[in-house]
Amino acid sequence: MGSCTNGVVSDQSGATSNGRASVDKGVDFANYFCTYAFLYHQKEMLSDRVRMDAYYNAVFQNKHHFNGKVVLDVGTGSGILAIWSAQAGARKVYAVEATNMAEHARELVKANNVQDVVEVIQGSMEDVQLPEKVDVIISEWMGYFLLRESMFDSVICARDRWLKPTGVMYPSHARMWVAPIRSGLGDQKQNDYESSMEDWYRFTDETQSYYGVDMGALTKPFAEEQKKYYLQTSLWNNLHPNQVIGTAAILREIDCLTASVSDILEVRSNFLSTVTLPNTRLCGFAGWFDVHFRGRKEVPAQNEIELTTAPSVDNGTHWGQQVFLLNPPIRVTEGDNLNGSFSMKRNKENHRLMEVEFNSEVKQYSGQLLPPFRNRYFIE
Amino acid sequence: MGSCTNGVVSDQSGATSNGRASVDKGVDFANYFCTYAFLYHQKEMLSDRVRMDAYYNAVFQNKHHFNGKVVLDVGTGSGILAIWSAQAGARKVYAVEATNMAEHARELVKANNVQDVVEVIQGSMEDVQLPEKVDVIISEWMGYFLLRESMFDSVICARDRWLKPTGVMYPSHARMWVAPIRSGLGDQKQNDYESSMEDWYRFTDETQSYYGVDMGALTKPFAEEQKKYYLQTSLWNNLHPNQVIGTAAILREIDCLTASVSDILEVRSNFLSTVTLPNTRLCGFAGWFDVHFRGRKEVPAQNEIELTTAPSVDNGTHWGQQVFLLNPPIRVTEGDNLNGSFSMKRNKENHRLMEVEFNSEVKQYSGQLLPPFRNRYFIE
Repeated sequence: MGSCTNGVVSDQSGATSNGRASVDKGVDFANYFCTYAFLYHQKEMLSDRVRMDAYYNAVFQNKHHFNGKVVLDVGTGSGILAIWSAQAGARKVYAVEATNMAEHARELVKANNVQDVVEVIQGSMEDVQLPEKVDVIISEWMGYFLLRESMFDSVICARDRWLKPTGVMYPSHARMWVAPIRSGLGDQKQNDYESSMEDWYRFTDETQSYYGVDMGALTKPFAEEQKKYYLQTSLWNNLHPNQVIGTAAILREIDCLTASVSDILEVRSNFLSTVTLPNTRLCGFAGWFDVHFRGRKEVPAQNEIELTTAPSVDNGTHWGQQVFLLNPPIRVTEGDNLNGSFSMKRNKENHRLMEVEFNSEVKQYSGQLLPPFRNRYFIE
Repeated sequence: MGSCTNGVVSDQSGATSNGRASVDKGVDFANYFCTYAFLYHQKEMLSDRVRMDAYYNAVFQNKHHFNGKVVLDVGTGSGILAIWSAQAGARKVYAVEATNMAEHARELVKANNVQDVVEVIQGSMEDVQLPEKVDVIISEWMGYFLLRESMFDSVICARDRWLKPTGVMYPSHARMWVAPIRSGLGDQKQNDYESSMEDWYRFTDETQSYYGVDMGALTKPFAEEQKKYYLQTSLWNNLHPNQVIGTAAILREIDCLTASVSDILEVRSNFLSTVTLPNTRLCGFAGWFDVHFRGRKEVPAQNEIELTTAPSVDNGTHWGQQVFLLNPPIRVTEGDNLNGSFSMKRNKENHRLMEVEFNSEVKQYSGQLLPPFRNRYFIE
């Protein structure tokens, strides 16, 4: 029952460790946890009706999983899931939260009269000690495109340490999806990048004229930095379904009961997509996720709930989708086929962020193969 | 010649150390240094003509300080000051930079043919070893309102370790200024705060209706968090001189040759200001700084250069001014006197940020005293 690791990490001195070293907690706090200590941020998530409805319904339409049971809420934040678990009849709820938000969770628990059931514990899941194993682990751990933030590591850790052999995971399953899209964002970002470079050349001219220093040696690294920022960093967007120009494909399916950290250190998948819109532009790919609350084979949910973050008119979520731009866009039409491969791994310096690669090839309806393209992206 | 400290700091576990402990480098990097590793950020500073002109003129109009001398550039960034020092005739320049920007500085030094003179050293000033003491320490260390970022600590450390007894500081002096101002920002932020609270009450109603959870226990901490964010956090602004409604006052004068870290851990000062505009509103205070390049008594500058960040029509800088809002504003008129006291100290969790207090009393021209007010602010 040792402490869990958080994947590949390196400290600023450049030393890299593989899988067994732990992340510096202070750095992790400054880089990641700190935003969750703000009530404004909690409110944003609590105001996401699709998210709230899904968890609310998952719990209250499946009280048999909670009634008289012991529950662990990983990353309780404001305490909402823990409070619902208690209201659904749990005998005991351990609500673990790494940040000072735990204080507020405690107040909320008390104000909602479930303090006899819910015990808020401030600490990281990897370190806390619980007095007993639990029947249910409930957690809202999903980041952009599912795995950004790598919070699922902490849920796996909790499961391996504290879930009874007969226990249930809420959610039980998760899937990563991808689809080809059209979007004006690509043109916008390309313009931003070009403006930035125009301004750079103006700047180098002036610096030479007025200050006698040639900045030309920095043009290449500046262009790379700007290219990464404008063109290679995935964007948050709430896409309209009519921006999806081809069939969506599943990149990865996760069984939350059995997944291991090594399963998710790297996500690699081939995918196929058929273009469904005539005479359009392939401007990039969108990535999103869904999760399901199915219980477990031996004790299934009575009402299976789905939480999806797919492009939607009315049911958008705070997660949006992650957009990976193609520059320049590619003309495609209905019936064209996309043969792609996807890979995602953690950023070496910050395991909470991701590096992505999309390789793709268009086989036109006519049968002609367009040149393949390969692009690298950063989920920041 | 021991290592230097960085003032009061505490780590995330809550332990506080006073003056003698060092800051966790990883945390400091994630919180502070990392922005300086971006070329875009360096370009912003290099594009600030007022800043560039001041340092350029300070160096090239005072070549006697540089010619044949040994120079240390603390926080060289892109290397600009080091390159100028070499071009002004320095025998040797040590250019110290904590971030990977040092790599770019090295390229720039080479591309400008001063690699025989300029040696770029990547590391923190507190740790690096130089082969010799130096005649000049040049550094652009000033943050918003002078001391935000607490970089001057590193300059003091450099001076105490490496400056010859006859050495010169560039800049030699620094001053913090304050003045009463008028501004529409106060109304704007008050509206933002009130909207935020309206939205909060809507949110708590909905959360009770739809989800059976009473968020009322969080109203007070949410309001405090929002108040801090909208009303108590100093704002960056480039004020127009006509927004300054009274005489400016000096809060602190620093002699860069003799100042110590304990001198600047806390800045306390009384100040007086007379309102110079008829029938106006005291909406808050603006804080800014200036620095001077005077050389030293024994070897003064031939041409004294000033770099000021006071409100200006044509000569604004990237520093702008720091605005501390008063809510509600106070009606004042020409001849009214402001009797104020100011204090600034470092944030306990992050020594790069500041906490400020303004106490003030208006004595009207008629002689009547308005109720005094006291406000606390955060420089984030």
